[in-house]
Amino acid sequence: MWQQYLQEIITGNIKTLARAISLVENEIAGHEELLKLLPPSNTPLIGITGPPGAGKSTLVDALIEAIVREGGKVGIVCVDPSSPFNLGALLGDRIRMSSWYTHPSVFIRSLATRGAMGGLHPQIMQITDLMKGAAFDYVIVETVGVGQSEIEIAGLADITTVVVVPEAGDDIQSMKAGLMEIADLFVVNKSDRPGAEAFAANLRKMLSPAFRVRNAEVPVLLASASGRTGISELLNEIKSLLSAGVSNPRRYWLLADKAWHLIQQQRMKNVGKDHLQEQIKMQSSDAGFNLYRFIADYYPT
Amino acid sequence: MWQQYLQEIITGNIKTLARAISLVENEIAGHEELLKLLPPSNTPLIGITGPPGAGKSTLVDALIEAIVREGGKVGIVCVDPSSPFNLGALLGDRIRMSSWYTHPSVFIRSLATRGAMGGLHPQIMQITDLMKGAAFDYVIVETVGVGQSEIEIAGLADITTVVVVPEAGDDIQSMKAGLMEIADLFVVNKSDRPGAEAFAANLRKMLSPAFRVRNAEVPVLLASASGRTGISELLNEIKSLLSAGVSNPRRYWLLADKAWHLIQQQRMKNVGKDHLQEQIKMQSSDAGFNLYRFIADYYPT
Repeated sequence: MWQQYLQEIITGNIKTLARAISLVENEIAGHEELLKLLPPSNTPLIGITGPPGAGKSTLVDALIEAIVREGGKVGIVCVDPSSPFNLGALLGDRIRMSSWYTHPSVFIRSLATRGAMGGLHPQIMQITDLMKGAAFDYVIVETVGVGQSEIEIAGLADITTVVVVPEAGDDIQSMKAGLMEIADLFVVNKSDRPGAEAFAANLRKMLSPAFRVRNAEVPVLLASASGRTGISELLNEIKSLLSAGVSNPRRYWLLADKAWHLIQQQRMKNVGKDHLQEQIKMQSSDAGFNLYRFIADYYPT
Repeated sequence: MWQQYLQEIITGNIKTLARAISLVENEIAGHEELLKLLPPSNTPLIGITGPPGAGKSTLVDALIEAIVREGGKVGIVCVDPSSPFNLGALLGDRIRMSSWYTHPSVFIRSLATRGAMGGLHPQIMQITDLMKGAAFDYVIVETVGVGQSEIEIAGLADITTVVVVPEAGDDIQSMKAGLMEIADLFVVNKSDRPGAEAFAANLRKMLSPAFRVRNAEVPVLLASASGRTGISELLNEIKSLLSAGVSNPRRYWLLADKAWHLIQQQRMKNVGKDHLQEQIKMQSSDAGFNLYRFIADYYPT
């Protein structure tokens, strides 16, 4: 069964891919078997992140257009922060991108972030691994750059693109340091705004080697996603960074973190706090109850 | 060896108790064996908590005095929040209490909180279980009431005493709801301040049944820890609450939470993120690396 799933995914069956992602997302029994079968993939993963309102979705929309125009196929994962405050804007974004939902060369999946720690999504690595196994030329992950998700996107993506807007020419100092540190590539979006050039110039000055994790210059491009200027230049820059060879020092950290959590999940599968509480309630009516003996007896190593 | 440790602790050997606490605190191999041997204990655990500056340490100091005066023995655990801002005040507290350090009926142990989650202390339950096994009439845990530690003290203690000060007579509305919910007993300290009576009266009004977790009235006492007034009344109230029978609904939750973490610690003992990262770094130089297969191969269920 999993072998057949895999074959269908590899050969570009979008329906099977969508079903497989749902299996992983809902942790359906056996989904690990499918993940274990995935062959190594060279499909590049492009991360698009940045502060709210930077125009990330419009930029992704424009990138899809550029990739499709040159005959490419692309898979997109949008990770919505669950915050109710962003809902309106996000729905707008989704509607903006929705013209691609039925295009045969484009696959879009939206994920809600879950869990209090503010990461991207508990199964983001598994889901992007599945997508990298499918017949795409690029996989794009789009997310708002906040907290823990910044570290995750930087570990996950081969190229992390940070999208910013020229709100104020000298406002770069206040840009979140986290975003400076993860960028392989900056896009100054809404480049038709006054001060965009100056903003980009300041940004280039700020990107001193001290900020660089990787040993390469961080390009700063100007673009207008809605006006469709600078988009093919962006795609070319991404290609040139990819062909220059990608080494991602944060990748190992993320893999180790992911592995730790998967192992923990496996080993703690049969240990639920509610069930523990019931067990302890029953056992401790016995006057001789000892928590440490209880653990040794009921949950031996 | 552990059997002998246990005998010495039970018979009131303070040096062995101190050594045993250190074994537990530093998770020395085998300390679980000692914990498993602990017989059930009826020693009451009194939690003293409240906002910074409420005079908790002075009140504990006065309580020790009252207990010792009537021939009792008492063990105290002070949990210091690690925040550097509180250090000065806490050192002051410790000095205040230090006259008891050499008294044969008194045992004081200070613990620093560790870990980012802001709980009391990762081994607080094990340490108080050890102390409850020793020959004390009371075990007192004193801590500042913040965040997660409030829930923990309420689960841990048989009687949770919340210490407050009459800063402003009508200021009770702003008191942290968390403290209202965990209190079995309120002490309005510094009762010589103007407005103390009114503060206590307002507090009693606020303590409507809606706030009660346990099915009993929550007494509000006035005291001046430094002036040594209201202290024997406090001790008597604690005794009367204890003899009325204690049922602590938060206890099971805490026990289950503790058990979950102990089981997790046991089962993840050989899984360190740094080691994982090294392993993955080495393995993934192999072009066919697959994280999920790696986990299944190296960390089987």
